[in-house]
Amino acid sequence: MSRVSAMSGYPEFLPAQRMVEQQVLAVLRETFELHGFAPIETRAVEPMSQLARKGEIDKEIYVVRRLHATDDESAEPADQPGPGGSPDLLGLHYDLTVPFARYVQEFGGRLSFPFRRYQVQKVWRGERPQEGRYREFTQADIDVVGSGALADHHDLEIPLVALEAFERLHRELDLPPVRMRVNNRKLSEGFYRGLGVEDTAAVLQRVDKLDKIGPAKVRELLVAETPLGPEQADACLALSTIRGQDAGFVEQVRALGVEHPLLEEGLSLLSALVTAAAERVPGRLQADLSIARGLDYYTGTVYETELVGFESRGSVGSGGRYDSLASDGRTTYPGVGFSFGVTRLLAPMFARGELTATRTVPSAVLVAVDDEGTRGTAEQVAAALRAGGTSCEVAPKADRFGKQIRYAERRGIPFVWFGGLSGEVKDIRSGEQVAAEAGSWQPPEDDRRPRVVRG
Amino acid sequence: MSRVSAMSGYPEFLPAQRMVEQQVLAVLRETFELHGFAPIETRAVEPMSQLARKGEIDKEIYVVRRLHATDDESAEPADQPGPGGSPDLLGLHYDLTVPFARYVQEFGGRLSFPFRRYQVQKVWRGERPQEGRYREFTQADIDVVGSGALADHHDLEIPLVALEAFERLHRELDLPPVRMRVNNRKLSEGFYRGLGVEDTAAVLQRVDKLDKIGPAKVRELLVAETPLGPEQADACLALSTIRGQDAGFVEQVRALGVEHPLLEEGLSLLSALVTAAAERVPGRLQADLSIARGLDYYTGTVYETELVGFESRGSVGSGGRYDSLASDGRTTYPGVGFSFGVTRLLAPMFARGELTATRTVPSAVLVAVDDEGTRGTAEQVAAALRAGGTSCEVAPKADRFGKQIRYAERRGIPFVWFGGLSGEVKDIRSGEQVAAEAGSWQPPEDDRRPRVVRG
Repeated sequence: MSRVSAMSGYPEFLPAQRMVEQQVLAVLRETFELHGFAPIETRAVEPMSQLARKGEIDKEIYVVRRLHATDDESAEPADQPGPGGSPDLLGLHYDLTVPFARYVQEFGGRLSFPFRRYQVQKVWRGERPQEGRYREFTQADIDVVGSGALADHHDLEIPLVALEAFERLHRELDLPPVRMRVNNRKLSEGFYRGLGVEDTAAVLQRVDKLDKIGPAKVRELLVAETPLGPEQADACLALSTIRGQDAGFVEQVRALGVEHPLLEEGLSLLSALVTAAAERVPGRLQADLSIARGLDYYTGTVYETELVGFESRGSVGSGGRYDSLASDGRTTYPGVGFSFGVTRLLAPMFARGELTATRTVPSAVLVAVDDEGTRGTAEQVAAALRAGGTSCEVAPKADRFGKQIRYAERRGIPFVWFGGLSGEVKDIRSGEQVAAEAGSWQPPEDDRRPRVVRG
Repeated sequence: MSRVSAMSGYPEFLPAQRMVEQQVLAVLRETFELHGFAPIETRAVEPMSQLARKGEIDKEIYVVRRLHATDDESAEPADQPGPGGSPDLLGLHYDLTVPFARYVQEFGGRLSFPFRRYQVQKVWRGERPQEGRYREFTQADIDVVGSGALADHHDLEIPLVALEAFERLHRELDLPPVRMRVNNRKLSEGFYRGLGVEDTAAVLQRVDKLDKIGPAKVRELLVAETPLGPEQADACLALSTIRGQDAGFVEQVRALGVEHPLLEEGLSLLSALVTAAAERVPGRLQADLSIARGLDYYTGTVYETELVGFESRGSVGSGGRYDSLASDGRTTYPGVGFSFGVTRLLAPMFARGELTATRTVPSAVLVAVDDEGTRGTAEQVAAALRAGGTSCEVAPKADRFGKQIRYAERRGIPFVWFGGLSGEVKDIRSGEQVAAEAGSWQPPEDDRRPRVVRG
């Protein structure tokens, strides 16, 4: 076999790291299910006509075709013709929102609305790899989608569920705490309209570059490339500096002297959200009027989340409200959702050794075999331990005492069992060895499963 | 948005079906972990040079490239040159064994051997879709891999773990029971060698077609396309009809009068396996000398599994021993493994309504809202229920009694909560309504989670 080497942009984890990721995903799933979100998965491929609708992202799509496709089958034909009637190409999905919109349209007749779903899957983007940017990564999404309409209170529900999940990751798995920053597109758009701008997307796109190029450059772009004059550009920049953990930010916006009904609507929605969140999760959510979000389907509230103390790593979870993600002509499906960047959260911490597990295998016990003739007995012991819910493995090779201990040590297995069903169990960390019955012995609660630990 | 329609070969499940699949996967994972298998995931793409080594399967590979790849970047360059030094194409993996072999080579220095791993992921094959054959499907694999050598007892361990998992799926989730059929490549190969055949693979490939084309056609092919004469071809066919749940099959093979050391080795391995399995899982495993397995990396024991009563749907789990799946020149990695065909097991049962869940959402309780002014109270009730581990959701819209009941009914939610923390809870199936405290009330054990039910 040829030599292999790591491919950049495709992070792969060691077993201990994957066990950490599994525990993170279990906390997310459990939180989503406690809140009544139902699970779905969608296929990895979508017709290019679906994927490419969102404009800027299309250069990052991976196209998929059969190796031995014939010439007139230049790619896998989907079951629907693309533009011009030609068979549509297939691409790998780059997020879970576009496939979800398609799923809602396809299965809408068999779903009950509002439909609450979660979805945990890999996505693919052909970006230049760098820390925090991957070509393959895992996202965990929750969305509530209505048929025709969706109440505003879901704009508060979604970030509260997200923050509850992050809080559990912090408390139970020792991940860093988070801070969520929230804005409302109606507020920004209303503000720009109040300044007399029609093409508000053009302004939003330039303001979105604040983090990358700084306020001076953004101001330059606004004046050169949009109808805004220097004073109006300053007002836009002033708006984007406003922050607040309570409704006080509203007065700061009003002080800028811009008026528009859409601005008022956005202010009212955002201040209600911030006020309610301050009561429920104090200190975890703030209004931040610089938040724009790149994707163009958001139409109201937008969320971004960063790890406290690791802000430079960027957002580890984001989302927002969309008034019409999907529509089939008769029905429009508005929704609000949030996406956890699972790989983006974990891969940098793994790469820097900031997070790992107490062992590299699920086994809490190694059942020793001192002679191949007693392997059957060792397997009976293992079966008895498993019946009590204890993960264990039988030594693969009969060997002397010291070698068995080293086998366990190398994997971080805390206990070694010697003898039969009435045997002895040794805690190899303390050296303590006690008589035990395989049918009833249990490891201490803390040793049942590998625990997540900060490096 | 354009109209969408199902794409054949890419099964997608409704939420209730996905909840069934999740419970199936949870049973598999739990069984694997009880036996000390550690989890890994590998990236979805591999260099084509890795994927295409296995000969016959290469026509089924999906090639992946960036939509806007430049001409001299005809596909995503991997970090290693392909044959002739050109950048290697990438393809989607078609199983989890080839990527696992690559993973073992790549991370070998940081793994402890024997390495026991499980891996649950999607795989892709560009086959013509039909029932039981999909273009995207989920596999769940376990393997034990040694560095340099691997003891024979793992050939028994792997099918016992697989059968334990299937047995739990049968008992806990009401899936059909299974029967495993086992053969040994050394037995068949030794038999063919004993008949004087050098190219044993050519014979094996033709015997592998028995199920598809029947014994008469296979006999014809053997005589026409291999060095076997008619009598020898008959001996091969006779061998393939031998079955047995104990060591008795050995005498049937000997009665065919063929002798070879490799045949003896295979007979001894297979009879030991069948005898041990008869003791541990009576009636679940039998020797079946017609089993060949298509992929060419198996070198010893081979396994196939079918659902009792649904044999025509084909194998739902298979595997075997490979003496050298991976090798880096210095070290050879022998292994033995098993792959559960999760989609192949579930998708036909879902399509025919043979398997579903008791509800379409995780929620056990709907917390009613009779007036938008009391939504805050309803959310307190929900938080208290969740703190006790009960999945619930708050009615999305204040509405009268009957509408709230119908909202729950449509989703199969068994309980509706009325009032505050000291409120009343109604079982909407029986109509019984009782006073309850949200801080302590629990649904009956059977209603905590959606249950899997046969249709």
